[in-house]
Amino acid sequence: MCFTYACLVSTQAQVLYDFTAEPGNNELSVREGETITITNQTIGGGWIEAKNSRGEVGLVPEDYIEVSNGAEDDEWDEEWDDVKSSGGYAESEAGEGGAINRGGAHASSLCRFPGFSKSGPELYLLSKQPAKGTKLPVYTGEVGPVWAYPDYQLDCVVADPKKGSKMYGLKSYIEYQVIPTTTNKPVNHRYKHFDWLYERLLEKFGSAIPIPSLPDKQVTGRFEEEFIKMRMERLQGWMSRMCRHPVISSSEVFQLFLSYKDEKDWKMGKRKAEKDETVGVMVFSTIEPEGLPDLDMIEVEQKCEQFNRFTRAMDDGVKDLLTIGNEHWKRCTGPLPKEYQRIGKAFQNLSSVFISSGYEGEAALTDALTAAGKTYEEIAQMVAEQPKKDLHFLMETNNEYKGLLGCFPDTIGVHKAAIEKVKEADKLVAAGKITPSDKITMSKRASIMSYSLQAEMNHFHSNRIYDYNRVMQQYLEQQVKFYEMIAEKLRHAHSQFTTM
Amino acid sequence: MCFTYACLVSTQAQVLYDFTAEPGNNELSVREGETITITNQTIGGGWIEAKNSRGEVGLVPEDYIEVSNGAEDDEWDEEWDDVKSSGGYAESEAGEGGAINRGGAHASSLCRFPGFSKSGPELYLLSKQPAKGTKLPVYTGEVGPVWAYPDYQLDCVVADPKKGSKMYGLKSYIEYQVIPTTTNKPVNHRYKHFDWLYERLLEKFGSAIPIPSLPDKQVTGRFEEEFIKMRMERLQGWMSRMCRHPVISSSEVFQLFLSYKDEKDWKMGKRKAEKDETVGVMVFSTIEPEGLPDLDMIEVEQKCEQFNRFTRAMDDGVKDLLTIGNEHWKRCTGPLPKEYQRIGKAFQNLSSVFISSGYEGEAALTDALTAAGKTYEEIAQMVAEQPKKDLHFLMETNNEYKGLLGCFPDTIGVHKAAIEKVKEADKLVAAGKITPSDKITMSKRASIMSYSLQAEMNHFHSNRIYDYNRVMQQYLEQQVKFYEMIAEKLRHAHSQFTTM
Repeated sequence: MCFTYACLVSTQAQVLYDFTAEPGNNELSVREGETITITNQTIGGGWIEAKNSRGEVGLVPEDYIEVSNGAEDDEWDEEWDDVKSSGGYAESEAGEGGAINRGGAHASSLCRFPGFSKSGPELYLLSKQPAKGTKLPVYTGEVGPVWAYPDYQLDCVVADPKKGSKMYGLKSYIEYQVIPTTTNKPVNHRYKHFDWLYERLLEKFGSAIPIPSLPDKQVTGRFEEEFIKMRMERLQGWMSRMCRHPVISSSEVFQLFLSYKDEKDWKMGKRKAEKDETVGVMVFSTIEPEGLPDLDMIEVEQKCEQFNRFTRAMDDGVKDLLTIGNEHWKRCTGPLPKEYQRIGKAFQNLSSVFISSGYEGEAALTDALTAAGKTYEEIAQMVAEQPKKDLHFLMETNNEYKGLLGCFPDTIGVHKAAIEKVKEADKLVAAGKITPSDKITMSKRASIMSYSLQAEMNHFHSNRIYDYNRVMQQYLEQQVKFYEMIAEKLRHAHSQFTTM
Repeated sequence: MCFTYACLVSTQAQVLYDFTAEPGNNELSVREGETITITNQTIGGGWIEAKNSRGEVGLVPEDYIEVSNGAEDDEWDEEWDDVKSSGGYAESEAGEGGAINRGGAHASSLCRFPGFSKSGPELYLLSKQPAKGTKLPVYTGEVGPVWAYPDYQLDCVVADPKKGSKMYGLKSYIEYQVIPTTTNKPVNHRYKHFDWLYERLLEKFGSAIPIPSLPDKQVTGRFEEEFIKMRMERLQGWMSRMCRHPVISSSEVFQLFLSYKDEKDWKMGKRKAEKDETVGVMVFSTIEPEGLPDLDMIEVEQKCEQFNRFTRAMDDGVKDLLTIGNEHWKRCTGPLPKEYQRIGKAFQNLSSVFISSGYEGEAALTDALTAAGKTYEEIAQMVAEQPKKDLHFLMETNNEYKGLLGCFPDTIGVHKAAIEKVKEADKLVAAGKITPSDKITMSKRASIMSYSLQAEMNHFHSNRIYDYNRVMQQYLEQQVKFYEMIAEKLRHAHSQFTTM
């Protein structure tokens, strides 16, 4: 890659999606497939400055373009010598790089390629390898099979985003502090590091556990500060969700991310994680249902179908709520406050007209009318600001769940494929392709996969109940406060009119 | 006129204004100037059934058409032998009929014809006739010139609309009870009678006092019941306003309307009122400023200009508020409750999905989520119904004022014309057209007109302050209740979620 200044300021890029400029924001409208020239990469906030073929220059979201010369994502750098394995969609998609074929099934394609290879599951079902890595026990809890939950619930704080720069200031990036509740000792990570963690988790656990995508590949803030705040909030949500997962939070790679001691520790840990061979469907080889009887295939299939129906239905429900929430957001921040403002202005205007009457004894009415008008202007502002205080969290939670639910079809797909393989076992035995003993092993292992899926679903359900309880309480609490405050303001406005 | 059944069912009518049918309401779109055939006049509620030239049949508002064979308004009948003088726009416009040229200036053209004849005022300014009728004194009050206010404030109740019919049931009408607070004895009146009263008041007082048009010549209700209720409410408002006016409420014709003893009393009173000659600008001849010095023309002109500016500004302010109120009404009864309903449905839908999870310990959340969803559906209904409880009265009051303010340009026009005449007086004297004594009389009389206008403006102002104080209090009180009730409902919904 080339990093001379000249190169940085004249990079060619392909436009991936249509983007329509907002008037007055110095933005540039671009069309999918268009080639543009990047004129400034140091804008920040997810924006670059670019020039189109007509010579027009303006801002374009970085994520809408693909730099033709292979430049990396918004916070690219070269501090690692092992750049090749450091993630980024382009690489994974190209199918190159050492990690991808390791273990035969590349789990990182989950959540990405609808055509997830179904050749995966039998690698585990028929594997002769002994299991490697930490064992993941599944116990019987009150609700059925459950993961082993730690006594102490890990959490972390993502905070204090700081701008750093490299290459004599030519490149800048944001570094976040991550403070785990265990050590309480902050570690620094850039978005790129989170992305690396995501890749590792997806690769290692993706067949058994839906790993939600990292937040905001998309551009959400119009301004750098807003963008960073939003990204941080979402990274926090993602990290907390990962912390809450007993399997993920106790994994070596996650612990490394949260509490590496120094740069050397981090680099060594990174290399080790990237060499982990118990990835993809092989993760099931580490799962150990403790004292649980083998399930028959009918039961395994029923459970799988039930989860499939539920996650699809919830996916629809969540998307529906998001659509409605979005429309409500628009109304609450657009036409509704505008209308309250106009009502407020109309009252104040009428008050001004009344003042001009020259009639004596008008002051009590005009003062009260002006105050009422101002009250409606205040209400307008309250209405416009309210969604950030309540609807925002409802939307964020549902957005998280949309991401999570989007991973289930692939996770469930692995199980369905395994079930199909077990169903074919008799034929395979008859054809002499596997031994009767292999068939028993396959069935046993499908049962383990099912326990894993059930434990994961139970984890999902308990989190879901917690999350929706919390977010609905928060939403309604803020809504109550909002309407109470409006009532209070109006009560005050009302009291200013003279009783006659 | 012809009243056979055959005639009733095949009357031709001209369309006066464009009317666009609402889909699904069995209405017929018509265009101004189109000729239609009335197929059923007994629909009621301000509607007739008609057929157009393409043979399409549907409902059309009665007020949008003019029956070609001279049939009367929606409650036409022939109980009076003096049909010719019983009002109706067509007559006045045609300029025929006995009353019209009586007194030279036909006041009933006020509020109707922008080209109000300016030849009016000098009839009074130069009149040699001695004043007839009750004297109308103007006193000096705290705020300047004021009418003589009675000790007892008259009011009345318009109630109990009853359907009556005539002509063997072929024609039906609505009769209202009017109960004055003085006698407490109900009298019956049909809309037509109110209209007759309006005509008399306009004719007699219109040059000095803005007489607001009778409500709802327009169609307001979609259904007969709603229409009658609305008309009654507005007749009540109109009557109360007339009752509050010291000059109008004490006039013979108004007293007749409120408290005629029997049919004979009513008929005789009617005839007398119709023969009243102190109408139009001649009403000023009965006005007597008591102990008030003559005003010079500069002062008269300044006052007039001030009132003109004020009423125009208030007219703009009121219309502005009505426009905004209308839009707010639409939003509150249309998209906003629909959105709350969709939010409510989305919560309930999510709850149903959760119920289907098969996970134990779900009930507390799903019950609470269902309840929250139902709460938003209830809020949707509250939002949709609220405008009738508050915005309605704010709109009605402003609508009344719009009507009232619409009469001021003509009332003020009479004064402006008088001022112009007085200004020309010197020339007229020089040309020998009037005597120097006439000139003094003219100036004196213009001063009387100004006192009258000032008294009227002060009456207007004091009523305005009362009305806006009252309606704003009512509006805000209902708004407070509304938001408090929403907060209460949401507080209850919130309490149903489990604290974790």
